[in-house]
Amino acid sequence: MNGAETLVKTLLASGVRVCFANPGTSEMHFVAALDRHPDMRCILCLFEGGVSGAADGFYRMSGEVSATLLHLAPGFGNAFANLHNARKAQSGVVNIMGDHADYHLRFEAPLKGDTVGISRTVSHWTRVCAEPGRVAGDAAEAVQAARGKNGQIATLILPANMAWDAAEGYAVAPPPPRLQRPSAEEIAAAARALRQPGAVLLVDGPVLWSDLGLLAKRLTKAAGARLMQPFFVSRFRRGAGAVKIERMAYRIEDNLNLMAGAPALVLCGTTRPAGFFAYPNLPSTPDDPDTRLIDLCTREMDIEWTLQALAAEIGEAELGPEDFMPPDHPALPEGPLTLASVGEAIAALMPDDSIVVDEGISASSHLAPGLKRARGHDALTITGGSIGFGLPNAVGAAVACPDRKVVVLEGDGSGMYTLQSLWTMAREGLDVTVVIFANRGYQILRDELAAVGVTEVGRNVVRMFDVVEPTLDWVALAKGHGVAGVRVTDMAGFNAAFAEAMGQRGPRLIEVVC
Amino acid sequence: MNGAETLVKTLLASGVRVCFANPGTSEMHFVAALDRHPDMRCILCLFEGGVSGAADGFYRMSGEVSATLLHLAPGFGNAFANLHNARKAQSGVVNIMGDHADYHLRFEAPLKGDTVGISRTVSHWTRVCAEPGRVAGDAAEAVQAARGKNGQIATLILPANMAWDAAEGYAVAPPPPRLQRPSAEEIAAAARALRQPGAVLLVDGPVLWSDLGLLAKRLTKAAGARLMQPFFVSRFRRGAGAVKIERMAYRIEDNLNLMAGAPALVLCGTTRPAGFFAYPNLPSTPDDPDTRLIDLCTREMDIEWTLQALAAEIGEAELGPEDFMPPDHPALPEGPLTLASVGEAIAALMPDDSIVVDEGISASSHLAPGLKRARGHDALTITGGSIGFGLPNAVGAAVACPDRKVVVLEGDGSGMYTLQSLWTMAREGLDVTVVIFANRGYQILRDELAAVGVTEVGRNVVRMFDVVEPTLDWVALAKGHGVAGVRVTDMAGFNAAFAEAMGQRGPRLIEVVC
Repeated sequence: MNGAETLVKTLLASGVRVCFANPGTSEMHFVAALDRHPDMRCILCLFEGGVSGAADGFYRMSGEVSATLLHLAPGFGNAFANLHNARKAQSGVVNIMGDHADYHLRFEAPLKGDTVGISRTVSHWTRVCAEPGRVAGDAAEAVQAARGKNGQIATLILPANMAWDAAEGYAVAPPPPRLQRPSAEEIAAAARALRQPGAVLLVDGPVLWSDLGLLAKRLTKAAGARLMQPFFVSRFRRGAGAVKIERMAYRIEDNLNLMAGAPALVLCGTTRPAGFFAYPNLPSTPDDPDTRLIDLCTREMDIEWTLQALAAEIGEAELGPEDFMPPDHPALPEGPLTLASVGEAIAALMPDDSIVVDEGISASSHLAPGLKRARGHDALTITGGSIGFGLPNAVGAAVACPDRKVVVLEGDGSGMYTLQSLWTMAREGLDVTVVIFANRGYQILRDELAAVGVTEVGRNVVRMFDVVEPTLDWVALAKGHGVAGVRVTDMAGFNAAFAEAMGQRGPRLIEVVC
Repeated sequence: MNGAETLVKTLLASGVRVCFANPGTSEMHFVAALDRHPDMRCILCLFEGGVSGAADGFYRMSGEVSATLLHLAPGFGNAFANLHNARKAQSGVVNIMGDHADYHLRFEAPLKGDTVGISRTVSHWTRVCAEPGRVAGDAAEAVQAARGKNGQIATLILPANMAWDAAEGYAVAPPPPRLQRPSAEEIAAAARALRQPGAVLLVDGPVLWSDLGLLAKRLTKAAGARLMQPFFVSRFRRGAGAVKIERMAYRIEDNLNLMAGAPALVLCGTTRPAGFFAYPNLPSTPDDPDTRLIDLCTREMDIEWTLQALAAEIGEAELGPEDFMPPDHPALPEGPLTLASVGEAIAALMPDDSIVVDEGISASSHLAPGLKRARGHDALTITGGSIGFGLPNAVGAAVACPDRKVVVLEGDGSGMYTLQSLWTMAREGLDVTVVIFANRGYQILRDELAAVGVTEVGRNVVRMFDVVEPTLDWVALAKGHGVAGVRVTDMAGFNAAFAEAMGQRGPRLIEVVC
């Protein structure tokens, strides 16, 4: 028995059952140990961004930590972007990054890199295993860290000789430390603030998809306060039956209007909202300068306890049908293909309790009105703003929820960053329908350039924003990865293709030319 | 005029003419400035690993620094792996990484990340622009740094408000500081060491492809010493007419044999060789414990001066035909398709002075004997060991050398990391022929697992090492990116496809099922 074996046993004993993997040579003994433990489900991704994005999606939908298996420094680098999104989503992930044998690091081997440095740029917790006999204990602490503070990125760096040297036993991750709570005085002050007309309670985390949403709604109703959520969140409930929570907008201008005049903004499970970017002559934050900001309960604190304490102070109103999204189901749209109609068609056809992974970027705002009228579903958004989140997150969500339909709304520009995830969908037979919105360019950048006042563009902008000459053929890209695809250019074509996808299991792709 | 404009003017005035780009919103003013300067050639890559790999290949073949345009933290993360390869290749690259406006960084915007931290993990030089009036000076220093010490990674972080705030003028990069040189005593001692029978001069850098190779050959011939090169190098000359330089092997066991008994190992333009990985019961370094290691001239020092000084001390022998690779041209092979035969076919058909980008991984060792017999060509290898280097490097090499045929030897596993570069080949009409060796898995990992003693494998290894169920369809993947492709399964098919590719310009792909 060796260090690698104690690591696998520790992960399993601590309840980690899935390992999203893109292994290399420095992880060979870990791979061999995984092979001796088929109860660990190893899922191969052909690029590390697929690994980290899948671990993110898996946590969002299961609440369970998975392991990733990543090659030393550059492998972790490839995983960085989706770890950034996972970090912002507060997804718990345990990264196992290989490294050279520690005694080899004093030489200039080609793959020698700053493993600790790159880990620390995105991980909450980083440790290098320093003794084979302590690998198990380190791994248990990594799992504990990943589960701590409502979900963290924990990275364990495993030098090859720590994996291959002899070691015995295993460890079990202890439960994470108790979450911090606001004081009774802070609760009382927040409750008083929420009773002012127009006050806002801004919530995030499980409030947006679990029964905590009911609690938040009852207490804000009792207080006469508004209940709101940030625009980009890990997961929120949408469609028929969802608790009505006002969703903030993408644009800072819209959020300034939404927040104007609020006497108080109470934060519970979130931080002060900020513009996605700064713009000349616009503020960084959308809250009214006269609004009192009450930082009651951060993302890392005890959200459930805080809401219960607020409810105890304020009381709970009974909820009626007006507090939930009605079963206002759209008919299948006819007429020309528009994004709004595609949103309605998805809403008309998508089965109850689906999972929508939304990386439609510029398309999503046009789809959203339709999707609100869908059957009840969970929506996952791009929390860290790093594109290439959609396809990998869908892999993780589908692994977490094998009995639910997963629909990915994906831009053609953003989809290209992690298209290799299509192969993992095919390999694992995941029930994912990918809708690619092929506007043949980075529409969001065209919009943003206009926002900075540039309306006439020359060759360099056209060459950098338009993905044409050649256009991408997403049906061929899907086929290349082993996924059946179809291209649609009119509404009837979309309706038929999406209906077929909803009626079958397994991955497929629909390219919508729009 | 604003900071972004002074940046573009400074790059142009300093001789930077190409910008490999994957822009985002935080770089919008830089994009607008690029648009006003069409003399900067902006080349769009659909993934940041394509950007950094292209900049690497461009430097390897032109010796010129290019700029990259990367989105803040996660965008740089995606570029990390090929920046790692570029760093190990000593390629000079100027990264322009956007960032939030500096006053926006105190808020938790989604894309806020550790831009400085991630840059420092791979860059030799990192600076955050702190005043719009100093952007030009900072950019000039970045170009100087990238050209310094025989090629470095320089990263300039450009907060959005430094780009959009008013600024005037531009700067010109000063020449880099003089390279360090060994002392006269060190030269004399190295010369004495090289005169011992069996002594080795290990060289890297331009010695492997420029006239410095002739000088190194003449002086080692005069001394009676062996002339060697590392296995993984930025660029080396191979095929007919190349100076004969012994190439080290991949496996540490083979290198131990190669280096056994050498009384001295003199390093010029390189560092002490190390095993690609450490293995139990094998040393980290291949040099004989009794060999005297002379660290004469590091990678960052003045290689040309050092060789001239050695030659002045030792003398120069005249070179004869035996010192060069002969024009020993293979015939077009017949019979069953084997990797050795494919190597011969490439050698038979590839035109003079081609560029071979070699990321064939496990296939390459079988191809190499044939390729040695090709017409003279430059070969680029995966210096940092981070896979996904091949297709992007070929983009940069082809941009640098538009009149030379570029041939990429690519594994099907490694090609998947940065396949988006196929689109840039099509967009720019680059004369690149991609040969994919489709062994349907990570053959190198199968070999490495056997090397650690595992011969019987179970489900988890099979699922992590074999890229089957489904197999990848590289012809469809190429088509999806706008590149014509063909699949061959026999030798006649390969000969015909490769001959056709050599006879035409523009990108194409050949999938070799092997």
